[in-house]
Amino acid sequence: MKDVIRLAHGNGGKLSWQLIKEIFLPILSNPHLAPLRDSAIVEVEGKKIAFTTDSYVVKPIFFPGGDIGKLAISGTVNDLTVMGAKPLFISCGLIIEEGFPIPTLKRVITSLQETAKNVGVTVVTGDTKVVEKGSADEIFINTSGIGIVLPEANLDPERIKVGDHILINGSIGEHAIAVLSQRQELGFEVPAKSDCAPLFDLVNEIRSFLTCIKFMRDATRGGVAGVLNEIVQGEDFGIELWEDEIPVREETFAVCELLGLDPLYLANEGKILIFVEKERSLDLLSHLHHHPLGKDTRIIGEVVSEPRGKVYLETTIGTKRILDLLVEDQLPRIC
Amino acid sequence: MKDVIRLAHGNGGKLSWQLIKEIFLPILSNPHLAPLRDSAIVEVEGKKIAFTTDSYVVKPIFFPGGDIGKLAISGTVNDLTVMGAKPLFISCGLIIEEGFPIPTLKRVITSLQETAKNVGVTVVTGDTKVVEKGSADEIFINTSGIGIVLPEANLDPERIKVGDHILINGSIGEHAIAVLSQRQELGFEVPAKSDCAPLFDLVNEIRSFLTCIKFMRDATRGGVAGVLNEIVQGEDFGIELWEDEIPVREETFAVCELLGLDPLYLANEGKILIFVEKERSLDLLSHLHHHPLGKDTRIIGEVVSEPRGKVYLETTIGTKRILDLLVEDQLPRIC
Repeated sequence: MKDVIRLAHGNGGKLSWQLIKEIFLPILSNPHLAPLRDSAIVEVEGKKIAFTTDSYVVKPIFFPGGDIGKLAISGTVNDLTVMGAKPLFISCGLIIEEGFPIPTLKRVITSLQETAKNVGVTVVTGDTKVVEKGSADEIFINTSGIGIVLPEANLDPERIKVGDHILINGSIGEHAIAVLSQRQELGFEVPAKSDCAPLFDLVNEIRSFLTCIKFMRDATRGGVAGVLNEIVQGEDFGIELWEDEIPVREETFAVCELLGLDPLYLANEGKILIFVEKERSLDLLSHLHHHPLGKDTRIIGEVVSEPRGKVYLETTIGTKRILDLLVEDQLPRIC
Repeated sequence: MKDVIRLAHGNGGKLSWQLIKEIFLPILSNPHLAPLRDSAIVEVEGKKIAFTTDSYVVKPIFFPGGDIGKLAISGTVNDLTVMGAKPLFISCGLIIEEGFPIPTLKRVITSLQETAKNVGVTVVTGDTKVVEKGSADEIFINTSGIGIVLPEANLDPERIKVGDHILINGSIGEHAIAVLSQRQELGFEVPAKSDCAPLFDLVNEIRSFLTCIKFMRDATRGGVAGVLNEIVQGEDFGIELWEDEIPVREETFAVCELLGLDPLYLANEGKILIFVEKERSLDLLSHLHHHPLGKDTRIIGEVVSEPRGKVYLETTIGTKRILDLLVEDQLPRIC
């Protein structure tokens, strides 16, 4: 039973990376497929285009703060946004389980369209497949997206240097907790709301900083700790996070305590990690504070020289804790 | 039970069209989402780009002549090709059922990559989601694609005129029969092989004809009859097909007879319908015959003034038979 796909192959942790590095990259080998990036940057007749894809299998499909439709636009818009691209066009591929209620489908597509409209992207092409009852779970949505890379963007993990500051635009873990709160097996009420939101508007607001921003990633699957681990792997620098500075809402803490979860590994759907020159970080911080989606931005850590290839937490009580890539799923089907 | 999604909503027949027209188009309303087209044509900084998406849920995932990986590249390449676009970049979104064997995954991705390489497209971005056992059926693949529209292409169903000839590049129904032949419940052996193939190379061969070609579509879900019905709907012309001229292999006929299927409604994955000015059709035919994927091309019918909005068959015995859009699925999960 070892040589089979497990849930953990899809969680953004160790097994996901193993799958990408040992199976996908060797077979599909080409320079565009850089595993660190949220979108590919391709050239079409001299224009730099960002191209990305994501399937959404979140369970349940409605949760406080969002639904699979809003998520499918937000997630794909954000994968373009963190590449410094302006999202333009989205495709929508539906796989629907036989028996799925049409009014629910309408609700999902309406939410998807509203989110798209608000962020200024257009759903230009689509596809619908229906499979027998029991061959899928309600509805899965794939959205792929095309954006045009902003000329001032020069985002590249290779530009990250020791001393760079790391910002996040608000409190973490809320998407995962909101989805979790709806799982019937949980058995208690959680006052959580997903942070699910498209972030292009926020990044557009700080466009003038794009030359001194080194790299951005949205902290989805694997959470802040997972995503930062991907960035340091094999590099000659490490990342130090300051526990005191990491924004976590009290309710999130409470649920995490109860269920033995670590908010640093919980998926977000509206949180972006920004690596920026130390000299510009305070200025960037105050700019981000002007935007509703950035008002709780904090500088949460910095790039350090040691230990190389590791992410560690300076805890509130002054100890250091290494944050490794997780092997097992904390929570499957969160996005 | 009426207001729920049925398998027939995904078969390219009447219910598929109802879903698109009554749910998707009103909610997602925008000029790009033209239901007749296989890709959207969008403009990015002055460049005309074709963008398309398709999810593949074929069951079983291996069949004579192909597999879900080859299909996922061929289908998406063909959706770009019939828009007169040169396919460039492909995204690959996998939804995998927990427990799926990793060696099988390797086989699928290798086949996908080989097909991509042969047709000159690059898989530049991907995503993998894993769902619990029983929440999906083995593996579903979404591929989206980007192509650049060839400058000489001027394909538009509005250019179709009475008198135009309709060509198809070979015999029909083989993909559906090949997939069907692998279904355990069938209980007999069929010497069928899917026609699954990327067709860009064929269309590139007849590039000089692109100015006089009015419209192209690949005859996938719904088959030749389904696709042609979509084209005539609401138009002031009809389509006459000549049964004598429609290439169907003997084995396909035999299975269709046995199972009560009509080859005109069976899915193809390597067949393209070409609408061309009558004056150029013989010349185009002889050009297509030079290419391995076009050697069995036939002129199978023409655009007629009456009956409007209908497709009919001039049968071998001289009668006329209206070919309507089907309501029920002939065969679910064929692509």
